[in-house]
Formats: sequence, structure tokens, C-alpha cells
Amino acid sequence: MNERSLTLTPEAPDRRGRILQVAGRLFSQKGYHGSSMRELASALGLTQSSLYNHVANKEELLLAIVDGVADEFLVTLEPVVRSAASPTAKLRSAVRVHLQIIAEHLETATVFLHEWKFLSATYRARVESKRGRYEALWREIIAEGVERGDFRPLKIEFTARWILSTLNWTYQWYSPQGALTAEEIADRYLDLFLHGLLKS
Amino acid sequence: MNERSLTLTPEAPDRRGRILQVAGRLFSQKGYHGSSMRELASALGLTQSSLYNHVANKEELLLAIVDGVADEFLVTLEPVVRSAASPTAKLRSAVRVHLQIIAEHLETATVFLHEWKFLSATYRARVESKRGRYEALWREIIAEGVERGDFRPLKIEFTARWILSTLNWTYQWYSPQGALTAEEIADRYLDLFLHGLLKS
Repeated sequence: MNERSLTLTPEAPDRRGRILQVAGRLFSQKGYHGSSMRELASALGLTQSSLYNHVANKEELLLAIVDGVADEFLVTLEPVVRSAASPTAKLRSAVRVHLQIIAEHLETATVFLHEWKFLSATYRARVESKRGRYEALWREIIAEGVERGDFRPLKIEFTARWILSTLNWTYQWYSPQGALTAEEIADRYLDLFLHGLLKS
Repeated sequence: MNERSLTLTPEAPDRRGRILQVAGRLFSQKGYHGSSMRELASALGLTQSSLYNHVANKEELLLAIVDGVADEFLVTLEPVVRSAASPTAKLRSAVRVHLQIIAEHLETATVFLHEWKFLSATYRARVESKRGRYEALWREIIAEGVERGDFRPLKIEFTARWILSTLNWTYQWYSPQGALTAEEIADRYLDLFLHGLLKS
């Protein structure tokens, strides 16, 4: 596996970045509750006390991973939604960048999508707020499409969740060695989202 | 929570059924690797040695839960696919029963959908075979719709996975106390699956 697919800061694989990368792999493979700081130290070739010089505790690592992925999603989608493109073109870009983030950061994205629920209440609220802002961006695209008459009179919130449900589940089966690239998957999803099953 | 939502054998809440029910809750809340037999025994009000009179080990419990949900999905969908209904009507029934199983067995379905990957190779292969048969049933519905000309010339496997992706992610946000029943969610999904976003 290359460095790029494992860390959110590929250009700066410093000590902390490396710790987050290996923690992301461990949490995604064994689950947050199934991973120990002892295992993490061992995987990093560090003593536990040396590891604790860099991170306060296991939950701080979970927060850093989940928060980093949340920021990546937000920062990437905002310019798409703010652009002057049509709602359909915005949707195409949004689907592509969402899948690209999952594909490029498969392990930390898995932690973001599944293990985030194990954060304690305060941290969880912070991540929920970012998830809420991200879903709101998707709702903007759908709402604009409905207002312009490009889309059917859809239920905005439900439709945005429907699209995100499909995209998020991709982490369960996507493989960099698989038959389809993230972009090909995005194009196929987009065709289905836009046109549905029925021959009109 | 009522008994019905927690066990796959609601009519026979015997000792083993009760163990699976509580194990399902524990695994879904803390993850398989984050749950111990000690905690499970404690939650059941049993000693550990008494618990081991009923189950060989933790993995046997995971297998029993995952296998039970897999059987439930298979047994429920088979008659739908074998019926004489139109592909669209079959799809409607299939979406409804899939969501109904997730809603009624939310905790064990969560274990089935996420924790199954922690099974060891042999057990995993057995579950993968059932998952494969289940996905094949969905492909049959899509293929029949395409053959009859009711559906567009879709990519069968990808389309079936698309639908299941949406349905499976529901376990992440569905709540029995939420605004929508499983049947209402199914109807909304079906409208989106069939017609897509675009005003035609």
C-alpha cells in the first residue's frame, strides 16, 4: 500500500501523521474497541511511553482521524456547491469527490464512517455538527435542482440521505485492486441516481 | 425495547435465544472485538462458566447471529422472487421485506452488516456464500426487469449492489422512534430507485 492511501497529510508523513495512519489501519481492521494502545505502539515500533509522548490517549486518536476525514469532506465539497455549475453538474462533481476521498483514504474513511459512534458525547457532538454541515451541502444541491425544475419535486432531506447512503456503503466493498476505479463507480452511480431503473 | 425487536426467535425466548439477543446488543454497541464473554455473562446475570455451558466461545455467538440474519434475509426474499408478480412489484416487496428485517432486528442486523467481517476464514466463507445467494436473488429481479423491457438496459450486478447499499446503510440512522416507519422508508426509496432525480 502506498503512503498516499493511508494518511490525510501525505506530504508530511511526520511522526504524528504516521501514528494516525497506523491507528487508522488498526481501528479499521479490528474496530476501535478491539484495538489497544499496546498494539498500536508495537505496530509503530515504539514503546507505549514513547507513544504517549505524542498522543494523550486512544480517544484523541479516534477524534483526530474522524475530524480529519470530516474536514476533508467539507473542504472538498464546499467549492463544488458554491460554483456556478448546474445542479446536475454539481451532483456529478459531488459524487466523484466523495468517492475519491473514500477510495484514497479507505482506512481512515472506514473509521470515520463506522467507528465515529464510539466517541464520547462532547467529541461526538463536534463531529455530528460537521456531518450536519456536510449533509446540508448535499441538500443545497438537491434543493437547487428541484427549484430550477431540473429534478422532480423530491423530498430534499430524504433524497440527500439516499445518495449519501449509497456512497458511504462503498467502503464495504471498494478495493483499489477491484475492476472499477472510483471515477467509474461515480459515473455509474450518477446514471442510476439521475435516471432510475424504469424505461421512461 | 420489546423482545420482538431483539431476537430472531421471538416466540421461543429460551436460554440460548436470550444469550444471542444480549450478545447481539453488546456486539452492536461495542463491536465484536470490544465485547468480552465476561461482560456478556454479567449482562445475562450468569457466571462465565455457566455461560460456557451454553456456548463454546465468542465466535460461535457471532456466527450464530450472523448466520441467523442471513437465513432470515434468504428465506424471506426467495418467495418474492419466485412469485408471478412483475419485476417492479417484486422490487417493491423486496425493498419492503429487507428494511423490515433491519428494522425488526436492528441490533443483530447491525452485527450482520458490520461485525461479520471479524469471523474467521471458514465461518466467513459460509456467510459469504449466503450473502452471495441473497445478492443473486436481487440480480434476478433486476435482470427480469431488463429482459421484459420494464427497466433500462442496466448493469445487473452493479444495480443490485446499488440498491442493497442504500438499504443496508439504513441501520446507521433508522430508529423505531423516528419519523418514518420501515414501510414508509421503503416506499420513498422505491420511488427514487424507479424514477431517479430528473424530471423527464
